[in-house]
Amino acid sequence: MTQDTLRLGAFFYATGHHVAGWRHPSSEADGGLNLERYVGWARRAEEAKFDLVFLEDGTGIRDSNLRSSERTARSAHFEPVTLLSALAAVTSRIGLVATTSTSFNEPYNVARRFASLDHLSGGRAGWNLVTSTTDAEAANFGNDQIARHTDRYERAEEFVDVVLGLWNTWDDGAVIIDRASGQFSKQDGFRPLNHRGKHFEVRGPLNISRTPQGQPVLVQAGSSGPGKDLAARTAEIVFTANQTLAEAVEFYGDLKERMARFGRARDDLKVMPGLFPVVGRTEAEARAKFEALQDLIDPVVGLALLERMVGGFDLSGHDPDGPVPELPEAEGAKSRQQLMFDLARREGLTLRQLYLRIAGARGHSQIVGTPAQIADEMEERFRAKGADGFNIMPATLPGGLDDFIALVLPELRRRGLFRSEYEGRTLRDHLGSRPPARVASAPASPTQA
Amino acid sequence: MTQDTLRLGAFFYATGHHVAGWRHPSSEADGGLNLERYVGWARRAEEAKFDLVFLEDGTGIRDSNLRSSERTARSAHFEPVTLLSALAAVTSRIGLVATTSTSFNEPYNVARRFASLDHLSGGRAGWNLVTSTTDAEAANFGNDQIARHTDRYERAEEFVDVVLGLWNTWDDGAVIIDRASGQFSKQDGFRPLNHRGKHFEVRGPLNISRTPQGQPVLVQAGSSGPGKDLAARTAEIVFTANQTLAEAVEFYGDLKERMARFGRARDDLKVMPGLFPVVGRTEAEARAKFEALQDLIDPVVGLALLERMVGGFDLSGHDPDGPVPELPEAEGAKSRQQLMFDLARREGLTLRQLYLRIAGARGHSQIVGTPAQIADEMEERFRAKGADGFNIMPATLPGGLDDFIALVLPELRRRGLFRSEYEGRTLRDHLGSRPPARVASAPASPTQA
Repeated sequence: MTQDTLRLGAFFYATGHHVAGWRHPSSEADGGLNLERYVGWARRAEEAKFDLVFLEDGTGIRDSNLRSSERTARSAHFEPVTLLSALAAVTSRIGLVATTSTSFNEPYNVARRFASLDHLSGGRAGWNLVTSTTDAEAANFGNDQIARHTDRYERAEEFVDVVLGLWNTWDDGAVIIDRASGQFSKQDGFRPLNHRGKHFEVRGPLNISRTPQGQPVLVQAGSSGPGKDLAARTAEIVFTANQTLAEAVEFYGDLKERMARFGRARDDLKVMPGLFPVVGRTEAEARAKFEALQDLIDPVVGLALLERMVGGFDLSGHDPDGPVPELPEAEGAKSRQQLMFDLARREGLTLRQLYLRIAGARGHSQIVGTPAQIADEMEERFRAKGADGFNIMPATLPGGLDDFIALVLPELRRRGLFRSEYEGRTLRDHLGSRPPARVASAPASPTQA
Repeated sequence: MTQDTLRLGAFFYATGHHVAGWRHPSSEADGGLNLERYVGWARRAEEAKFDLVFLEDGTGIRDSNLRSSERTARSAHFEPVTLLSALAAVTSRIGLVATTSTSFNEPYNVARRFASLDHLSGGRAGWNLVTSTTDAEAANFGNDQIARHTDRYERAEEFVDVVLGLWNTWDDGAVIIDRASGQFSKQDGFRPLNHRGKHFEVRGPLNISRTPQGQPVLVQAGSSGPGKDLAARTAEIVFTANQTLAEAVEFYGDLKERMARFGRARDDLKVMPGLFPVVGRTEAEARAKFEALQDLIDPVVGLALLERMVGGFDLSGHDPDGPVPELPEAEGAKSRQQLMFDLARREGLTLRQLYLRIAGARGHSQIVGTPAQIADEMEERFRAKGADGFNIMPATLPGGLDDFIALVLPELRRRGLFRSEYEGRTLRDHLGSRPPARVASAPASPTQA
């Protein structure tokens, strides 16, 4: 059965995705450190029947220019797994997806935390697996520079196998709690993993039982070759950034093709590109909203954002009104750097124009328009097989989210493109996907009881 | 001012501290993986004005004998920081203390998570710093054996300095959110730590601002010499196990003496030994409750518990009705092993008698008696300066907690020994302590902006 409705994520990036969003009256600018704000946003998204809340993460202030960080709301924010754990207690249906890096964590700890979140939420947890991409983050973990791209992915590949393996060290229904016999779990209901690989040696079993979803939903964002292979093998959601419809369709087809190699069906992975909407009842109103945000951008912040997006290179010596310079290939986020170069070339942008262009969507699709215009573009991409849904990136929170819910969702529902009620209880129920085949034990690891 | 009332922790160890507690009708045996249960227990403890909820943790199933683990409720349980984050959303005053090991984590990640919990809870977070003590845990992180005791403490010393340093990379009031000027945080309101030590190199700053408590409360449980020094320098709570009053008074005095060396006042650290109470309206009723629990102990589980308590040595070859054998000094929890030997010698216990003796309190004080008897012993230890309070270890949850609240707390209040209302809002308010002096930067780390 081919999927016939959109999947939608509510991507909360305190306090809204626009780099100057916190300065706008439609944001709650203290949201990054205020649980009540997040509870309000999450409840709005759940009331609107979003599939999930999505939180990104970095293991440090990514902007090595602290003078720019002082002028953004992203310098200080909750750690996402703790935040989603809190939200698990006050929501009941919406999925909860947090980003955690494989670069500076141990797989046993990550497997435990997401299993714990899945239990806490009754089966609503998702892990967005990323590799860390900036030297600023590496410096918090004893490294001067971030590891090379291929090394990061090699570690990530093994990391995810260990995590999947650990989630499967307990059987379904292993916890029986038989007071009379004194048997808490089934005999042999759990067992070691005994993983021995290049990066990790992990005995297991996990000290938490199999979760309500069996295993939490894996989400990935990498768009490079190794990133796509890893996603095709293990992910149920891919969060990606595409600019043109043609690029989106190509990416989507490529990814779904790759799934067959791993014995997976196309519908078991949902491609959900980021989408930054600025909605107005008229196009003029939408444009005015957007311009009000653009006018609030501090040049220091805009340039620092761009520096990060092109791989951490210093751009301060270049004329802001000149062309985007040639730069070496980034060791950090390669696909993001390429996205920036493609965008600048396609639209003939100067440095300043480029940072203004990405100040909201950071390279993701940006639509400033009426509900019908936004729904048109979403529907077109969906029908053309360029997306299974979208990760909605409100410019401000809660203002941008409220606008999307009040204006765009009714239009999508009129077109039969989005649910009016939840049908299931778990994140995987909402997605309608199936998990990748169980990893009973990771490669090259003999399993023994 | 000398402290005149007790501090009380509610130590939740699903599903009660008695090793067979889960089999008893007064427990909710699925509590280890059921958020609703924990919410109920935490709300009861908050209603009763406990200072804090305390959660222990291990980075793996500690019992290397999985056949015993199958028969205990501790094999599968929530990860504590995620669980307390969930509880933060549904409680408002009670402190939230989670254990996290320094052995298999990175200080930047730990500092972030507890800072996040402190923000989520409005200043109620505490970190119980431990070093991991079992080979079973080490095997989940690429090590065949746990590190030597001195090495673990050396790492822990540096770890805590980095965490304290990171918590202080942001100034009080640094987040100003000035929309008009575009300044989100004060100029120079945060700065790198630039720690370069033997075990860690951590640049900082933290990507979360200074927390409501300035820094979360540090809790420690080590009772060895290095453990006591670390506590005297940095902890505001010490969780410990003492058997006799004389031992308790000696430990207490020693610890408070050590504080002076670090320029700290005695009242700024609260010694809170574990206390395992089994309460009855009469002594006979209390004894009957206890015997009902003891009768539920599976010998396999009892012996495995004892094996872990004496350092992971295999005891299966020894006569259960013979004396406790001589064993080499443990590399794991040294003070716990010594506690077992002292207890067996003092009371002349066989192996079986010893495991029956520790099946509830695991070496902590155990009192089976009336409310007056329990209050007498608490008061005596408090007045003799052997404790500033107690970490209450209910035999079953919620039954044992309910008994303590219904029967013992009124007796303590009659004696003026425990609060009837919270006076403050943060965990530190409840404790009435002051944090250790700020660690502006860790030793040997030049601070530069």
